[in-house]
Amino acid sequence: MEPKGKVILTGDRPTGPLHLGHYTGALASRVRLQSQYHTYVLIADLQALTDNSDRPEIVSQAVWEVLLDNLAVGLDPEQVTFVLQSGVPELAELTQLYLNLVTLARLQRNPTVKDEMREKGYGANVPAGFLCYPVSQAADITGFEADLVPVGEDQLPVVEQTREIVRRFNSIYGDTLVMPEPMTPTFGARLPGTDGSSKMGASLGNAINLSDPPEVVRGKVMKMYTDPTRKRATDPGHVEGNPVFAYLDAFDPDQDRVSDLKAAYRAGRVGDVAVKEHLAEVLLDFLEPIQGRRTEWEQRREQVREVLLSGTAQGRQVVTTTLRKALSAVGLPSAADMQAVSISEVV
Amino acid sequence: MEPKGKVILTGDRPTGPLHLGHYTGALASRVRLQSQYHTYVLIADLQALTDNSDRPEIVSQAVWEVLLDNLAVGLDPEQVTFVLQSGVPELAELTQLYLNLVTLARLQRNPTVKDEMREKGYGANVPAGFLCYPVSQAADITGFEADLVPVGEDQLPVVEQTREIVRRFNSIYGDTLVMPEPMTPTFGARLPGTDGSSKMGASLGNAINLSDPPEVVRGKVMKMYTDPTRKRATDPGHVEGNPVFAYLDAFDPDQDRVSDLKAAYRAGRVGDVAVKEHLAEVLLDFLEPIQGRRTEWEQRREQVREVLLSGTAQGRQVVTTTLRKALSAVGLPSAADMQAVSISEVV
Repeated sequence: MEPKGKVILTGDRPTGPLHLGHYTGALASRVRLQSQYHTYVLIADLQALTDNSDRPEIVSQAVWEVLLDNLAVGLDPEQVTFVLQSGVPELAELTQLYLNLVTLARLQRNPTVKDEMREKGYGANVPAGFLCYPVSQAADITGFEADLVPVGEDQLPVVEQTREIVRRFNSIYGDTLVMPEPMTPTFGARLPGTDGSSKMGASLGNAINLSDPPEVVRGKVMKMYTDPTRKRATDPGHVEGNPVFAYLDAFDPDQDRVSDLKAAYRAGRVGDVAVKEHLAEVLLDFLEPIQGRRTEWEQRREQVREVLLSGTAQGRQVVTTTLRKALSAVGLPSAADMQAVSISEVV
Repeated sequence: MEPKGKVILTGDRPTGPLHLGHYTGALASRVRLQSQYHTYVLIADLQALTDNSDRPEIVSQAVWEVLLDNLAVGLDPEQVTFVLQSGVPELAELTQLYLNLVTLARLQRNPTVKDEMREKGYGANVPAGFLCYPVSQAADITGFEADLVPVGEDQLPVVEQTREIVRRFNSIYGDTLVMPEPMTPTFGARLPGTDGSSKMGASLGNAINLSDPPEVVRGKVMKMYTDPTRKRATDPGHVEGNPVFAYLDAFDPDQDRVSDLKAAYRAGRVGDVAVKEHLAEVLLDFLEPIQGRRTEWEQRREQVREVLLSGTAQGRQVVTTTLRKALSAVGLPSAADMQAVSISEVV
């Protein structure tokens, strides 16, 4: 195997089981890239709490769900390092250093956070932790000295905020932090929800989870939104904006068959039920090996725990080194550094 | 010796040498209380950076100055535990948990922070770290499970903010954090600056430092602001609002003599120069044992370093325990707790 030069930081907010949208949006490329890059997968439980502080049980359950989902899609713990965010307090200390380099006005201007705050109706009652989460992400990215951060277009502001912090830190304290680059072209198109809305989300009730049993998948598919203008199976149907076809585009390995189906649908030669039955089969075929691997991992629970434990310990070492570098660049002797510094130099 | 039941958290922002105002405002009671309470003295370097991020050398130098000043006034490292804030990343993780429990609006309403922001002319360009520092103080106070926090009247909002966070944390996650009480009556009156302004401060250029050499003390005293309405030594003088007499009230061990001097000053029987010469002698007598102890400590630099090293390590153990309790109350397994939890309970 080639030595892995560049470092990727990626991860998930554990707020529920991962779904097909996570797969096309992040997990597929994560699996593809794992052999080429040194990948850290951060299970960002502290970040998940920033807007779930009064529902912590959601986060604590999802930590294990999300880890199993990652293993199920084929991430190999020999290849990637899984890290639990709350297990690395050094990330929080980096966050604290970076909070001094970002103004309140800048945080309030962040387009991603602005959109999310509007969705959640926060206004001035936004939890301070939520407003500051892009700074915590900067700590995650720089703490692991990531060169590359895979993001969707809508998350580019997160990487831009990190790059600003790195620029400012390095200009005040000297060249210390690694400047990360966003990695966007690795992502597929955003998968719509089963209700036809533009985004699949657990909280929107329009998701098909990677761990949904076959009968649940079938049920969700048969209830999917299709083409509201079509009254009868013999009416010409619309393929664009029809999530059933978006899913077939994403998951049917036989794309010629998808083209034929689209033509038949447009011509009124195939009904919604038939297309949905086909989609259900495609998804079950896609999910079968994933759920098979999940079952295997579920039977090796000690090992799952060990994956997160040892990954977190390994990640903590890396971030501790970065924190020491950062503190020493700022001029603050960390407790650890103090042991290495002769008192005559510091007093 | 009686076992020490209650815990005090106190400390200093290292931004320069400590001065007479620090002594009357905090250090005097700190020395007096050290035998009765288990006292942690936090050298809050990360907090000092929140408004000095572009002048880190000020903070890094002041860490050792402040430690030496504390030792010089008679704090006994066998009695109190000195902790360097940046050496305890677990405090930062507690901060991150608490930031979710405080809204932006609440932070912007904090009277202490509002005043400071006005003084510094920050507006919306306030560094996020500065706006959030009361949350970081809540982590300091609760991290060491402090029962009592010695504060001046103007810092009561800091303890109130901490109490709100403790109340909220305990109500959501179950009784976990110790509720701190402010300890105010231990403090003397606020010492005015040598220029007569209401507050002594290094940045105001009106401070007499505990480490100022005798000739510097004498020079600063002889240039002190006194009574601007008095033209000649034979005019009746004003004692109120005259910092020379405020200092004599605070530092002259012979208060009868101070009363006599005040009467003579009011009657125009003693000149400013004579009163100042007396004050200079009083201050030099007061500072002599302090500076003597400082010199002794400066000659034992290895030991000074060891005081901060071992105190920080000891403090870190205490805060790590609090963080584990907090994470486990929230339901997030810390890396350390994970080792103790059987996978069958968590997966």
